[in-house]
Amino acid sequence: MAQAKAKKNGVVAKKLVGMADVVIAAAQRAKDPTFEIPMRALSNVSFNPRRGLIEMGDKKQARSFFNVGMAKKFMQTMLVADALAELQQADLTTSLREIYYRTKHTIQDSHENTFDTQDESDPIIEDLEVSLIALREELHVRAENSGSIVGPVVFGDDGDRVDCAKLGKGGYSVPSIVEPEYLEIRRCTADFLLLVEKGTQWNRLSEDKFWRRYNCVLLTGNGQPPRGVRRLARRLHEEYKLPVYVLVDNDPWGYYIYSVVKQGSINLAFESQRMAIPKAKFIGLSSADPERYELPRNVGIKLNEKDITRAKELLNYQWFQKPSWQQEIKRMLTSGLKYELDALANKDFQYLTKKYLPRKLKEKDWLD
Amino acid sequence: MAQAKAKKNGVVAKKLVGMADVVIAAAQRAKDPTFEIPMRALSNVSFNPRRGLIEMGDKKQARSFFNVGMAKKFMQTMLVADALAELQQADLTTSLREIYYRTKHTIQDSHENTFDTQDESDPIIEDLEVSLIALREELHVRAENSGSIVGPVVFGDDGDRVDCAKLGKGGYSVPSIVEPEYLEIRRCTADFLLLVEKGTQWNRLSEDKFWRRYNCVLLTGNGQPPRGVRRLARRLHEEYKLPVYVLVDNDPWGYYIYSVVKQGSINLAFESQRMAIPKAKFIGLSSADPERYELPRNVGIKLNEKDITRAKELLNYQWFQKPSWQQEIKRMLTSGLKYELDALANKDFQYLTKKYLPRKLKEKDWLD
Repeated sequence: MAQAKAKKNGVVAKKLVGMADVVIAAAQRAKDPTFEIPMRALSNVSFNPRRGLIEMGDKKQARSFFNVGMAKKFMQTMLVADALAELQQADLTTSLREIYYRTKHTIQDSHENTFDTQDESDPIIEDLEVSLIALREELHVRAENSGSIVGPVVFGDDGDRVDCAKLGKGGYSVPSIVEPEYLEIRRCTADFLLLVEKGTQWNRLSEDKFWRRYNCVLLTGNGQPPRGVRRLARRLHEEYKLPVYVLVDNDPWGYYIYSVVKQGSINLAFESQRMAIPKAKFIGLSSADPERYELPRNVGIKLNEKDITRAKELLNYQWFQKPSWQQEIKRMLTSGLKYELDALANKDFQYLTKKYLPRKLKEKDWLD
Repeated sequence: MAQAKAKKNGVVAKKLVGMADVVIAAAQRAKDPTFEIPMRALSNVSFNPRRGLIEMGDKKQARSFFNVGMAKKFMQTMLVADALAELQQADLTTSLREIYYRTKHTIQDSHENTFDTQDESDPIIEDLEVSLIALREELHVRAENSGSIVGPVVFGDDGDRVDCAKLGKGGYSVPSIVEPEYLEIRRCTADFLLLVEKGTQWNRLSEDKFWRRYNCVLLTGNGQPPRGVRRLARRLHEEYKLPVYVLVDNDPWGYYIYSVVKQGSINLAFESQRMAIPKAKFIGLSSADPERYELPRNVGIKLNEKDITRAKELLNYQWFQKPSWQQEIKRMLTSGLKYELDALANKDFQYLTKKYLPRKLKEKDWLD
C-alpha cells in the first residue's frame, strides 16, 4: 500500500508541477502563460443513457495571465496548485477550508488579499480536479468522516487490519478518503451492500445484526451520503461485485439521493465516472409500500409546496423516464403524502429488520 | 455485560411499570390518577458553584387524569411509558422519532390522533427521564452515531473487542448509547483525552498519529458534541481518571461548546450529573493565541452582531465569572475578530500537530 501511495502521489504531483512548467515555458518564450480548463457548466453536462451516467462534455475555456479579467484567477490557481503539490510531497491530506487558509495572504506592497473568502478557492480546486483528471481525494482534499460501516468486510487502514464484522454495533467510522492508496479492501464476503440514508435505521439494522443473517454490508452516511461513503460503495460494487441497494425516505429528497448514488449529480458531473453506481437499485421506501405494508395514512406527512415542485422536476429528469419511475413518482403526488423510514416503527420497533426488508429481498421488490 | 444489562433493564422496566400501577391503584380507590413530574423550567435550574454543575431544583408539578387541561398529556405520557417499557422488555434501542411514530394512532371512534407531531412526544420523554431518574440512554432512546475515537482505549461492544489503537486513521464510530451495559471500557492506558470540536482537526491529528506520540485519546463529535460523545468523555474521565482538554474554534460558540462539556446546559440540566465534566480544561483556541502564535490578522473573521451579542451574554453567565474567562472573552470582543481552528493551516498544514498543541501542552496553557 505504501508503494502504491508513493507512486500515485508521484503521478499527481507531476501533474501539479506540470502547471508551473507551462508558466515557465511561456515566460521563456515571452508568451502569455495560458492553460485550458474543462467547463463546469450545465451546458457542458449531459446524461449518457448508455452508460447510465451524468457526464461532462469536451468544452474548455482558457485561463491566461495577461488578461485583466483573468489575472487574479490565474494567480489564485497557481497558489492553490502549489498548496496541493505541497500536500502530495508531504503525503498529507487536508480540508477545503484549510486550503483556503493556507493560500490566503496579503499581496506584498498592497492591501489586497490573495483570497477573501473560501468561495474563491473552492471552485479553483474543482477546476484543478477536472483539468488534471484527478478526484478531489487524489488531490488529498478531504471532507468530514461521516459514515459508519459494519458487516463482513476487512479493511487495511494505516497498516491496521480492520474487520467490520468485529466492531460491535458501532462499526468503523468511514474516512473521507477511501482511495485504494489510503484504504485497502482486503476481503469482502458479503452478498450485497445496503446503503441506508439515515443513521437511525442503520442503527436498528446494526443492533439487530441484520448483516449477519442476510450476509450483507450495512453502510450509512447519516443523511445525504458524503463522497467517502459513495466512493466506498462504488469500490465494493466494482471490486467485489456487490449489488447495491439504496434505502431512503419516500419523498423527493430520497429519490434524489438514490439518483445521485446511481448516476451522479449535475454539479459534480466530472466525478460520476468514479463515484456513480449505475446498477444501484432503489429498495424503498416506495410510494407503493404504504398500501403493501399497510402503513396507516396518519403516519404519512402531507406533501408541501416544495415537495410537489421538486417531485415534478424529477419527473422531467432524463434518468427518471422509465415507466416504473414515472409511476413511482406520480403515485406519491396522487396520494399527497410522503413517508419516512421511521414510520415503519408504527408497526413494530423491529418491523424494518424482521418484516419489511426480508419481504423486499424475497420478492425482489426494487426499482432500477 | 449481558448480566449487567438484564439487571439494568429490569430496574428501568420496573420504574416504567410502576407508573401504570399508580393509575390502577387510583382507579381501584376511585381516585384521580396523578403523578408528579419535576419541573423542567429555567426557574428550576441553577448553577452549583461548589460542584461546578448546572443542576435541577426540587420543584415538581402534578399531572392528573381528571383535569381537562391535563387529560391528553396524561394519556400521552402513559402511551410513551408503555412504548419505553416495550423497549426494555425486548432489549431494543430506538430513536425519538420512532417513539413518536410507534405511539401515534387515531383514537378509537374519533378523528383525533394520540400525537400530531414529534414536538408532543419529545417533551414527554424528557418528563419521564427526570421523573424516573433515568438518562434517555437508559430508557434506550438513542440519537445518531456521530463521533469518532482513536487512541489507546479498548472497548467491548456486543462481545467484540474493539481496540481503538488498531483502527487506522478512521477509528471507531462512537455509538449514541455508551452506557456501561452497552459499551464496556476494557482498558485505557492514555494520559489524557483531547475532545476536538471539528472533524477536520481530528482527522489532522489522527492522520499524524498525534495520539501515539502524546499517549492520548482523540475524540470528536463533528461539531457540537452529541450526547454519546459527551457521555463517553465523561466515562473515560471518571473511570480512567483521564484529564479532558477541549479544543474549539475561538468564537462564542466554541466557548459555549466548552461550557456545555464542562458544566452541562440549561436545557438538559437534569443530565449534567451524568454528562458534565467540571474539571474539563479549555486548551484553545484562546483569544490570546493569534498574538502568541503569530496568526496574521487577515485569517481572523470579523465578529458579527450575533457573535457580539452572544459573547456579551456569556460574560454574564455565572460559570464564566472567573477573571481569566472575563479576560478571555473581553479580549475577543476588543480585537473584533474570531478565529477558526482551520486558520492554523495558514502557518503550515501540520502546525496544529507539530507546533500548536505541543507548545500548549508543554506550557500548560489552558483555561479552567
